Amino acid sequence: MKPNMGGLYFSFLIALLLSANLEASYCSNEGLQTVRNISELTQDNYGRPGLSHITIAGSLIHGFKEVEVWLQTFAPGAHTPIHRHSCEEVFVVLKGTGTLYLTTTSHTKYPGSPQEFPIFSNSTFHIPVNDAHQVWNTNESEDLQVLVIISRPPVKVFIYDDWFMPHTAAKLKFPYYWDEKCYQAPPVKDEL
Amino acid sequence: MKPNMGGLYFSFLIALLLSANLEASYCSNEGLQTVRNISELTQDNYGRPGLSHITIAGSLIHGFKEVEVWLQTFAPGAHTPIHRHSCEEVFVVLKGTGTLYLTTTSHTKYPGSPQEFPIFSNSTFHIPVNDAHQVWNTNESEDLQVLVIISRPPVKVFIYDDWFMPHTAAKLKFPYYWDEKCYQAPPVKDEL
Repeated sequence: MKPNMGGLYFSFLIALLLSANLEASYCSNEGLQTVRNISELTQDNYGRPGLSHITIAGSLIHGFKEVEVWLQTFAPGAHTPIHRHSCEEVFVVLKGTGTLYLTTTSHTKYPGSPQEFPIFSNSTFHIPVNDAHQVWNTNESEDLQVLVIISRPPVKVFIYDDWFMPHTAAKLKFPYYWDEKCYQAPPVKDEL
Repeated sequence: MKPNMGGLYFSFLIALLLSANLEASYCSNEGLQTVRNISELTQDNYGRPGLSHITIAGSLIHGFKEVEVWLQTFAPGAHTPIHRHSCEEVFVVLKGTGTLYLTTTSHTKYPGSPQEFPIFSNSTFHIPVNDAHQVWNTNESEDLQVLVIISRPPVKVFIYDDWFMPHTAAKLKFPYYWDEKCYQAPPVKDEL
C-alpha cells in the first residue's frame, strides 16, 4: 500500500508545532497554572550523577523576579560544586543528613579549609552572600532532600576547583545548568 | 530564717541581664547559628487560633534583606485573613489539603468573588503581586502545613474584612504580627 505522504507530512508539521508550543510554554509564565503538582514538574540531574533538581518557582522558566525555589535530592555521596554567589540563599532540609562546608573568607585571596556543619532533617541553614560553600550528602545510605531559596534570580554561580583556588580564578557558570534551556541571551547591539 | 536580700537582688539583676541579652539575640543576626533546628525555633499562633507560625529565615529577626521563609501549620478550619501584599510569594505544601482563594482584580475597585483552587501535599502555588488572597485549611481532620517564601521583607500586609471591601479601604498591618517583637520604628526626625 502506498503511504499517504501528504498525511505523514501533515502529522509531522502538527508534531513540530506542538513541540514548539510545549517548549514555549515550558519557558514562559503565560498560562502558568496557579497550583502545580511538584511531582509533575520537570526533574533532571543536569549532568551531575546522584542529583535530582526541580525548579519549583523559577525566574527564566516561570517569570519570578525576586525569588526562586528549588527542590533538590542528593543520593549518598552526591554534592554541589564548591561555589559562591552574591545572592541570599536559605536551605530547608526535608529529609536525610549531610554536611555543609562553608568558608567566611570572601575578603582573603582564596576560600581555604572550610568549616564543617552537620545538617539534618528539619534543620535550616543559610549561606552568607559571596561565601564559598558546598553541600554534600555524607550519609552512606539515605538521600538528602532540601528546599533551596535564592534571591535575585537567575543565579550567577562562580565555581572553584578546590578550596585553595583564588576567588578571582573561580569560573562563572551562567546561565546555570537548569537555567540554560530558558535563557535568552540579550540581543547583540548593532555597533554601527 | 532571714532571707538574704542582697543575694535575691543579685539573682534578680542577673535574670534581668540574661533576659535582656536573650531579647537582643532573638532580634539580631549577631551570633546567628549557621545551622538551626527548626523544632527549636520560636513558634506562636500570634493571636490566631489554630495557627502555628515559625519564621525560619527572617529580616527583622535574622537580618535577611531579600527573602524570608516561614513554616506555617493551620489546624482544620484555620485560615489567613483576606489580604494582599506587593511582594512575590511562593507556597510549598508539605502536608494536608486546603483551599486557596484568589482574585486577580487589583485593577478594579474591590477583589470580588475569588476563584477557588484545591491545594494538596507536594503542590506549590504562587500569589501574583498585589492579588487579594486567602489560604484556608478546609480539611476537617488534618493539619495543613506550608512553607512560605516572600521577597522584599518585612511584609506589608493590607487586610480586607471581606471580598467586597474596596482595595483602598483594606487596612495596612505593619509590622505584621510576627514582626512586631523585632520591629524598631525609625527615629522621629527633629522638625526644628
